[in-house]
Amino acid sequence: MSEKAEFLTDAKALLGERGLTTDGELVEPWLTDWRGRYTGRAMALASPASTPEVAALVKLCARHGVPIVPQGGNSGMSGGATPDASGTAIVLSLRRMNAVRRFDADAMQITCDAGVVLQTLHETVEPKGLRFPLTLGGKGSATVGGLISTNAGGTQVLRHGAMRAQVLGLEAVMADGSVFDSLKALKKDNRGFDLKQLLIGSEGTIGIVTAATLRLVPAIADRAVLWCGLGDIRTARKLLVHAQREAGDALEGFEVMPRHSLRAVLAHEPSARSPLQSEHEWHALVELIGDRSGADGLSDTASALLEAAFAAELIEDATIAASDTQAEQFWAIRDGISAAERALGPAMQHDISVPVPDMADFVAETVPRVEERFTGTKAIAFGHLGDGNVHFHVLAPEGAPRGEWEESEGKTISAFVHDEVTRWGGSISAEHGIGQMKRDELARLADPVHIAILRQVKQALDPQGLLNPGKLIAQHDASDGTPLAQGATTL
Amino acid sequence: MSEKAEFLTDAKALLGERGLTTDGELVEPWLTDWRGRYTGRAMALASPASTPEVAALVKLCARHGVPIVPQGGNSGMSGGATPDASGTAIVLSLRRMNAVRRFDADAMQITCDAGVVLQTLHETVEPKGLRFPLTLGGKGSATVGGLISTNAGGTQVLRHGAMRAQVLGLEAVMADGSVFDSLKALKKDNRGFDLKQLLIGSEGTIGIVTAATLRLVPAIADRAVLWCGLGDIRTARKLLVHAQREAGDALEGFEVMPRHSLRAVLAHEPSARSPLQSEHEWHALVELIGDRSGADGLSDTASALLEAAFAAELIEDATIAASDTQAEQFWAIRDGISAAERALGPAMQHDISVPVPDMADFVAETVPRVEERFTGTKAIAFGHLGDGNVHFHVLAPEGAPRGEWEESEGKTISAFVHDEVTRWGGSISAEHGIGQMKRDELARLADPVHIAILRQVKQALDPQGLLNPGKLIAQHDASDGTPLAQGATTL
Repeated sequence: MSEKAEFLTDAKALLGERGLTTDGELVEPWLTDWRGRYTGRAMALASPASTPEVAALVKLCARHGVPIVPQGGNSGMSGGATPDASGTAIVLSLRRMNAVRRFDADAMQITCDAGVVLQTLHETVEPKGLRFPLTLGGKGSATVGGLISTNAGGTQVLRHGAMRAQVLGLEAVMADGSVFDSLKALKKDNRGFDLKQLLIGSEGTIGIVTAATLRLVPAIADRAVLWCGLGDIRTARKLLVHAQREAGDALEGFEVMPRHSLRAVLAHEPSARSPLQSEHEWHALVELIGDRSGADGLSDTASALLEAAFAAELIEDATIAASDTQAEQFWAIRDGISAAERALGPAMQHDISVPVPDMADFVAETVPRVEERFTGTKAIAFGHLGDGNVHFHVLAPEGAPRGEWEESEGKTISAFVHDEVTRWGGSISAEHGIGQMKRDELARLADPVHIAILRQVKQALDPQGLLNPGKLIAQHDASDGTPLAQGATTL
Repeated sequence: MSEKAEFLTDAKALLGERGLTTDGELVEPWLTDWRGRYTGRAMALASPASTPEVAALVKLCARHGVPIVPQGGNSGMSGGATPDASGTAIVLSLRRMNAVRRFDADAMQITCDAGVVLQTLHETVEPKGLRFPLTLGGKGSATVGGLISTNAGGTQVLRHGAMRAQVLGLEAVMADGSVFDSLKALKKDNRGFDLKQLLIGSEGTIGIVTAATLRLVPAIADRAVLWCGLGDIRTARKLLVHAQREAGDALEGFEVMPRHSLRAVLAHEPSARSPLQSEHEWHALVELIGDRSGADGLSDTASALLEAAFAAELIEDATIAASDTQAEQFWAIRDGISAAERALGPAMQHDISVPVPDMADFVAETVPRVEERFTGTKAIAFGHLGDGNVHFHVLAPEGAPRGEWEESEGKTISAFVHDEVTRWGGSISAEHGIGQMKRDELARLADPVHIAILRQVKQALDPQGLLNPGKLIAQHDASDGTPLAQGATTL
């Protein structure tokens, strides 16, 4: 029996019929990322049902030198859960592990398997008057394990933080098959450096998250959603500072979009209506949230905030949503930007951040720089100004051929945008991770000290290089060809 | 010239007269921890004036194999900044690096050198209507670098989190003298696992923190401080859940103490007055904070909270501080417990945590277990119930000889308490760190997987074993004598 056949026999014995398949039809849907950018091959799809099964499988892989690509909902943005083309790896799906292990409403904590889907999590805690304060477009497929491994963001980061801030406890299987159990949620624990933190955002390269204990917050009891028209992006930044001072912890969201984005949505969505009658260069969508119905006086706070903002000439016009329905209409405009702009033609999209105080200046300076340098393009920045994170899209010149343009001028534009972000001390991946998509850009632009430490830690915790190889950092050092790990597959 | 003499000559050339001393009188005060529990020796005291100087010194130490003991205010609780007895190490003081590099009040961020003292930090931001939301007893000496390296806690963790939650950016010198620069505060940054998080709480064993960017919060605009008398500790837990539901984010502190502690303070401090006329088994000190003067309706919230708590029979009696002065008197009682109990005789003190929902049960069950097993002792638990963190003190039987008792029965008691904490899934160090004091207890009680990962990361990032050797983890594996690092001093 070949080593591969022996491995598959052992793995099948371990996981059973439901737990391991090599059937091409069953494996194939998981070999391409949901955006269709990356396709790989795999020798099998493993779907263990429990942490001990994951641990045993990882041990088996270590013995046979089989690389492992962990996968949650396969809804990542950077190809981090897609195997390479070699076909030597297995895809390890966590989707079968989808149990809520413990839900303590009083403690506002929930412990669940890595495969629990975000939307299920939302629905599980809602009846108890609680909410899980993180949401994003892929909530119907994104899993807890994937959200942790990519330190996912979303529109509620301003107040509640990204996924890292929601993780109170963690369980993971390490590269040698040992189980790191830190599921107990200790609010204070100073027994050395926090290994939980190391696993969050590590994209499956140093351990496989199998379960987590997550924090919950009270359900929304009161809400005020404001739409403001502004003269320029720097004033939006001033309005953000003003809103933080006036609303304090009640400020849950602060999103901006330029005139171009609003127009695109209105043109693309016949049912959409502009919240304001007047035209403005920039728009801000501001959400205040109260945990205690009425007691927070949100509507007074919102009115006072606007009044002072008018007086300080921060806003040209503004309105407060009169109902939840209207609030949802405001948000539908924000959420409709990506689709509306896709309809306009090819575009390069960049998920970037710079320090919050610098983002307005970055946008004001970089938009014209890009448009000047790449004739006919249109640069659009919109999104989470309150997090110093915008989606920086560059639309192709009219008539540019879709597919072809992205691979030629598009690539040059992305490198230019990433160079600019780096010059501003920012990040080329604010919330989507590195995966395989941005791996080489990270290697090109990151501080060598940063990369060296990433590699040292990776080498220490995955000496065989079997955990999600080729993601985040290359297997071989580009500079001198030194292999990162002995047993790793070369990519 | 001996290697030691050569090293000292080079170091002096590097740091200048002010930056390096071997004068016994100048070095000696920094060789003993402030509680006087540990005393070591050192070949010199280095006080670099800048990050490049720290980096150059660390490189020099690496070349000569000289161990480094980083030190901030020397006010740690676990001997983490005290060198060993060999005299081969240098003490690297960060105290000369005490500049505020950048203060951006609008962004509510401050970047400062590692040697900035906590109280100075408080005083720097106050005039701008801001506060740094972490405080503790040693604020007059504790430095930013030390607070980060030990992930310090305090009485505001319930709402604001420990030091980890305050760190937005970090600069550190690694073992090879390279500078890890992550000072830019990016609210969202998913470029691989977060190395900043790894350095926080690492006690100088994998890098030397030289600067940090910290978050600030609005100054306190409104405040309600409540004192409640309760029948038992489990009811205190119910009151905590109740307060979290009623006050939401306004809940800033929730401290508990038993009748014994209140009595001890009243006996020890003639000026102290009991907040309530009646006697109660337990007391809870609850603080609500508002960021916006008046607008938060704190006094209404406090009254409603108490009314509902009475109705639910959670409290026997309660009062709201009528003034800031009275609020300070309430807090003075809480802060006076340690001193009052020290006056009663020798005691073993334990800084422990268990999951927040379990702490009341832990106290209710463990106090009688300890007292039963160790005849004549009195077990007292008080402190941060809202963080699942109490100071668990065991007072010696009457007449037990101070000094002698701690070394004999006291040690047995501590092991017993740590065993119980471990059985409950808790931590033997909630906020004070491991240092040298709890190193062997950590090795005895921690999950071997946890210890293995700590050692792998330590080995990867400090292969010579020169950074704060003997702290947190032993240089040699107790089980098989495998050296942790080649060049390390054996302890």
